[in-house]
Amino acid sequence: MKIWMDGALTDIEKARIDPRDRGFTLGDGLYETIRVSDGRILRLDKHLARLAAGLRLLRIASPFDETALTRALGETLDANTLSDAVLRLTISRGPAARGMAPDPAGQPTTMITAAPYSRPGPSRAVIATATRRNEHSPLSQVKSTNCLDSVLARIEAAERGGDEAILLNTAGRIAEASAANLFALIGGMLVTPPVADGALPGILRAEIIARLGATERPLSPADLTQSDEIFLTSSLGVRPVISLDGRVIPAGGMAARIAAEL
Amino acid sequence: MKIWMDGALTDIEKARIDPRDRGFTLGDGLYETIRVSDGRILRLDKHLARLAAGLRLLRIASPFDETALTRALGETLDANTLSDAVLRLTISRGPAARGMAPDPAGQPTTMITAAPYSRPGPSRAVIATATRRNEHSPLSQVKSTNCLDSVLARIEAAERGGDEAILLNTAGRIAEASAANLFALIGGMLVTPPVADGALPGILRAEIIARLGATERPLSPADLTQSDEIFLTSSLGVRPVISLDGRVIPAGGMAARIAAEL
Repeated sequence: MKIWMDGALTDIEKARIDPRDRGFTLGDGLYETIRVSDGRILRLDKHLARLAAGLRLLRIASPFDETALTRALGETLDANTLSDAVLRLTISRGPAARGMAPDPAGQPTTMITAAPYSRPGPSRAVIATATRRNEHSPLSQVKSTNCLDSVLARIEAAERGGDEAILLNTAGRIAEASAANLFALIGGMLVTPPVADGALPGILRAEIIARLGATERPLSPADLTQSDEIFLTSSLGVRPVISLDGRVIPAGGMAARIAAEL
Repeated sequence: MKIWMDGALTDIEKARIDPRDRGFTLGDGLYETIRVSDGRILRLDKHLARLAAGLRLLRIASPFDETALTRALGETLDANTLSDAVLRLTISRGPAARGMAPDPAGQPTTMITAAPYSRPGPSRAVIATATRRNEHSPLSQVKSTNCLDSVLARIEAAERGGDEAILLNTAGRIAEASAANLFALIGGMLVTPPVADGALPGILRAEIIARLGATERPLSPADLTQSDEIFLTSSLGVRPVISLDGRVIPAGGMAARIAAEL
């Protein structure tokens, strides 16, 4: 596997993250997971815009502009001879001495990896009780590498026999799944939690709201138990939730119809 | 500088974190910052106990037991010929394929670095408005590498002319500083926020509560403005807050007296 790191392609076994990289020591980084279909990088402008918002929030000055990153993504794809793939672009604040405060003179680390794409299957989800997503932090609005709440939720899901977790926010409302947005069909209306409730501004999420007229509104766990259908969206695709906390949800085919429309 | 990584000492310029390490890609790790004074590692049992609690929460099985980690810390200290130092022990879940769910067969990464100790100076603190600490997440109770809320708060502090930030929890109560616990002297009583409000269970914090009789109670920003003294504690020491949001706090010398007592 070839990896692109700070301007050059190299074998992943030889690529090195510095042990002092704040991405490793403090989770001080951002990422995007980008779908490639038939050799085409999907929705790249949206991914780069979200990444830019994250960089601004964290005050990280990327050494590579959007043109350079676009070229680098293409090179990584070509080097791995993949046409249906997942690209992951990660930018961390880079190596630094100890301490929480960033050094404005630090040199960020930029890394791109590629993996073969496989369509996500239907989910047996649980509503996580182990932790809550923090809608009071602006980190809920960018794709940072501080993923431990989602990791804890997925550990809980596995321990309860599920394969996906839905996180509540600190107020007890539905925020999103561990790495996907959530939509529910309730009384004939397609609804999804607002970003103010801790939903990541997902790219497919925005497209479904704009093109299919889904409504953003706060959702409680009780709302979900009254849903006719629930499905999850991420840049990797749309997948139905076929059970929630062990209760079977009838498959209505909405996830498949929406996937086909997008 | 010598670094200890997964069982061996090596030059830090040659040490390598795998680009697929979940510590780098997902912030999936824990750490301890440990003071060394006159060649003696301070409060090591407490640090290892807190680390163990974090490992249990994250379901990471450390390949090194406490005896092995203790030996490794000593070796790292010796290799860097430091006697007043800060050791940092980091354990991440290690390299993995993409995805949020951990692979139970994964091999964690264990890393120890050492740096010369310098006593932290007095703080000009601000109460962060940029973000909130999530007291609803069990991550607030362990020392994980998901540090971005603290990093955001420190960026805000610097932009407002301060050098330390105090974080509120999601309910608007005082939680802690960016990498330290907070104590306040209010009406002759020494008080500190409870861990239920998002205070990390700090090791010096516990010692001050047990030995000096400080009281855990919820604190509001208004409580802080009525404090006669405020000081911060971490494993690196005790330091007074000499101004809060630009308002000068008279130096009462309590931080110095407590540092001397511990």
